[in-house]
Amino acid sequence: MANSWVNSAERIGADLHLELPATGGRRAALITALREAVREGRLAPGTRLPPYRSLAADLGVARNTVADAYAELVAEGWLTARQGSGTRVAQRAEPLRHAGKWPVDAPARARTSAGAPACPRASTTAPPHGRAPTQPPRVRAAKATPPTPRHDLRQGTPDASSFPRSAWLACSRRALQQAPNEAFGPGDPAGRIELREALAEYLARARGVRTEPGRIVVCSGVAHALRLLFGGRVLRGPLAVEAYGLPFHRELLTAAGVRTVPLPLDEDGARVDRLGRERAVLLTPAHQFPTGGPLRPERRAAVVDWARARGGVVLEDDYDGEFRYDRRPVGTVQGLDPERVILLGSVSKSLSPAVRLGWMVLPERYVDDVLAAKGEREAWASVLDQLSLAEFITSGAYDRHVRRMRQRYRGRRDRLVAALAEHAPQVGVTGVAAGLHAVLRLPPGTERSAVEAAARQGVALDGLAAFRHPETDMDAGDGLVVGCATPPEHAYAAALEALCRALPPHAPGT
Amino acid sequence: MANSWVNSAERIGADLHLELPATGGRRAALITALREAVREGRLAPGTRLPPYRSLAADLGVARNTVADAYAELVAEGWLTARQGSGTRVAQRAEPLRHAGKWPVDAPARARTSAGAPACPRASTTAPPHGRAPTQPPRVRAAKATPPTPRHDLRQGTPDASSFPRSAWLACSRRALQQAPNEAFGPGDPAGRIELREALAEYLARARGVRTEPGRIVVCSGVAHALRLLFGGRVLRGPLAVEAYGLPFHRELLTAAGVRTVPLPLDEDGARVDRLGRERAVLLTPAHQFPTGGPLRPERRAAVVDWARARGGVVLEDDYDGEFRYDRRPVGTVQGLDPERVILLGSVSKSLSPAVRLGWMVLPERYVDDVLAAKGEREAWASVLDQLSLAEFITSGAYDRHVRRMRQRYRGRRDRLVAALAEHAPQVGVTGVAAGLHAVLRLPPGTERSAVEAAARQGVALDGLAAFRHPETDMDAGDGLVVGCATPPEHAYAAALEALCRALPPHAPGT
Repeated sequence: MANSWVNSAERIGADLHLELPATGGRRAALITALREAVREGRLAPGTRLPPYRSLAADLGVARNTVADAYAELVAEGWLTARQGSGTRVAQRAEPLRHAGKWPVDAPARARTSAGAPACPRASTTAPPHGRAPTQPPRVRAAKATPPTPRHDLRQGTPDASSFPRSAWLACSRRALQQAPNEAFGPGDPAGRIELREALAEYLARARGVRTEPGRIVVCSGVAHALRLLFGGRVLRGPLAVEAYGLPFHRELLTAAGVRTVPLPLDEDGARVDRLGRERAVLLTPAHQFPTGGPLRPERRAAVVDWARARGGVVLEDDYDGEFRYDRRPVGTVQGLDPERVILLGSVSKSLSPAVRLGWMVLPERYVDDVLAAKGEREAWASVLDQLSLAEFITSGAYDRHVRRMRQRYRGRRDRLVAALAEHAPQVGVTGVAAGLHAVLRLPPGTERSAVEAAARQGVALDGLAAFRHPETDMDAGDGLVVGCATPPEHAYAAALEALCRALPPHAPGT
Repeated sequence: MANSWVNSAERIGADLHLELPATGGRRAALITALREAVREGRLAPGTRLPPYRSLAADLGVARNTVADAYAELVAEGWLTARQGSGTRVAQRAEPLRHAGKWPVDAPARARTSAGAPACPRASTTAPPHGRAPTQPPRVRAAKATPPTPRHDLRQGTPDASSFPRSAWLACSRRALQQAPNEAFGPGDPAGRIELREALAEYLARARGVRTEPGRIVVCSGVAHALRLLFGGRVLRGPLAVEAYGLPFHRELLTAAGVRTVPLPLDEDGARVDRLGRERAVLLTPAHQFPTGGPLRPERRAAVVDWARARGGVVLEDDYDGEFRYDRRPVGTVQGLDPERVILLGSVSKSLSPAVRLGWMVLPERYVDDVLAAKGEREAWASVLDQLSLAEFITSGAYDRHVRRMRQRYRGRRDRLVAALAEHAPQVGVTGVAAGLHAVLRLPPGTERSAVEAAARQGVALDGLAAFRHPETDMDAGDGLVVGCATPPEHAYAAALEALCRALPPHAPGT
């Protein structure tokens, strides 16, 4: 194996990490693995692939399997095969989103997402969408376009390579075998009772939530929950929100006709003493997004008091409450007063956004209205996933997964902090006691250039400004929001190196 | 086995059909099977259950397993155990939706859904939602309430007991094992390319659809598609709709601010010559819902001509296009002009509404707007289900399932027609060449009393009036819309008998 192609740095420049699953079709698995290697940049454009024989021997598969996989990927446009030149990674496997959408004079931005696309809309597997497999993709010179980000340090998603496929499948099998027949008929808009029971128990134990299955409504995620609450007229605006937060949430609220009013932040969290005439406030108490601190106890008590006095309601977005590293978990505000707080949660960070499941834990007075907004039957959340998740939680697999990921993300957090201490000691880092992201504090006026410098290093990330409410007069300063969870494990070190290269050399006043 | 309890009509009055899955926990499976038997009315209130020993022997399980299952169901309130009286089915296992929602003076309608609930909101497994398992459910005398429907002949859902659990699980396993890691990250709002490719191939082959993966957008069902198109302002009202159709669709359109304008129907389908100034029309061309005929060829051509001339668009709801019995499949209108028709489809009828997946096949000019309405990432449709369904389709399992269900539903259709010919020859039946429902034609003025008579026989179904657009001046006559697919196979004969008992004795003028 010393001469093995897979591990030969001279021939391909990096360890390919071609791992085929232990079971299932070899050909399909190899195609998938090669596609991913190209997409993630581990196999660079122009790289010559090993002869069928060598790769077949390395992987322990038949030579024809490799030949077929190569042929398929050539047909799909990922590879090219030329007489005398062998099989190589195509220079530019351009994703084509819609057939007929390839005008010669299209703006350059539409063509920059080859390789490892930064935009989720472009991150599908196969480049030649909607094109016959025999047509090779058009190859373009890349001169005019900026380099494709090779390191994804944007916040918001867990490590996709850590999805617990086997454990999930085992739970799905048990759940679907045991489910009563009626589970496959029209769904209860409240969600499966099995899942609501599992959530009631889990949320009480892990997050200090006080509820019962009858007050939980399953949905497809926190965004869906907000749409149901405001689009369904269960709640009405204006809604107070944190001055820094997810633009995505603000935009969907605006689209639902809800005005959002920014609430400034300080070191104790949102300034809930500044609440005005709003009747509802959306907070991230466990880990302010994106600045990173928890809402302090006196603020928690104050916001509950406000809700009681004003007949208002607190929307608690508990988006990453499971991931705390340096101290005991911070319980939910919901536990202080279940009749004044709507808890919103999902598995998007703890498990995967591919499982489109979330939940609302509701004060009793909202249950009927939320169910009415959902409709007579479940029209959104997959019942199969609901059954599987219920089994995943009750079997203990969810706890095991969260524990494993907490360790992994803590390790990444530590590596980020160590890398900064070594290579960019002038850069402060905050918000690292919890969660899947950290904030790197920058000298005033340097954020935009740091984001651009990161892009030149192939690093995709956002500055704090991207999360600022357009109407706030508060300024959280300059900073980079670094998602530690997104890259696959083997790519994290390189991402940190690229990040450090992009940071400004001097701290303010030093 | 001649003395077996399970098959002893004297002791329980009917064959219990207690079938436990071959694998998985025995105790949980038995609990599930008994719950279902009670819920479906196969085990009537008051029925005495066999001793542990007998049932254990019949089912080949340990005696303790039966004892545990009984104890659990007693705790849940499904069964009662009294000294000297053995274990019996509880008189009324009242579903309690929300804790604290049980005022003594609640209206009777809230309490009628015990046994086999007619309303999907009530059809969850466990009666004591939100109640500690040790509290028995309150038992009420049933005097003041009408009998619970024991036969569900409402249209709209496939036989839930026919969900192909094993085949689906096998496809899930293959799909999840083969999926690239990025599948578990944020989802493409267009849907997984694997599913869009599978759908493009399948819809072309089975439904004559002309498209490509780049023009397909995955969603969670047809209702979601309508919400995206109109709520997302891709299309604007007013929208012409068939004078008889799903109230659910009309209501969600109204909620999205879209006025619907009724289009009369005749024996050739919707009167598309009556289209006015609308720019969009929603049709069910394969099988008009609910009256049952196809849209005739000249009408198909005419509506496409209208769309071309007016710059309009046809929304084609292909809700049960796979289920045709007496002639070759009717292709889609979409095949006539892919740039003038939006095809809407889902697996809710062909597979199960528990799989919350549907699709839009779009003219190119709408693709970007629909994707923008969906959002930057997939927020709705389970990616796991998308991968599984793609494998289910490409492996041929979907074709096999549809073929099997077509045979089964055709058999049910034949049994309905035969039962009517024998027991109610005065009642005409239409719309039976296709689909999961039929229309029983009634003498004028008798529809409401027939629906009520059916309710008295324990049959849940709707009359044609339930589907009539409130603003139409068209009258399709009196009729019952009978869903043949909903009951489990073993319950269909009894449902037909009960239906026939409810039908009026004389046809008009005979």
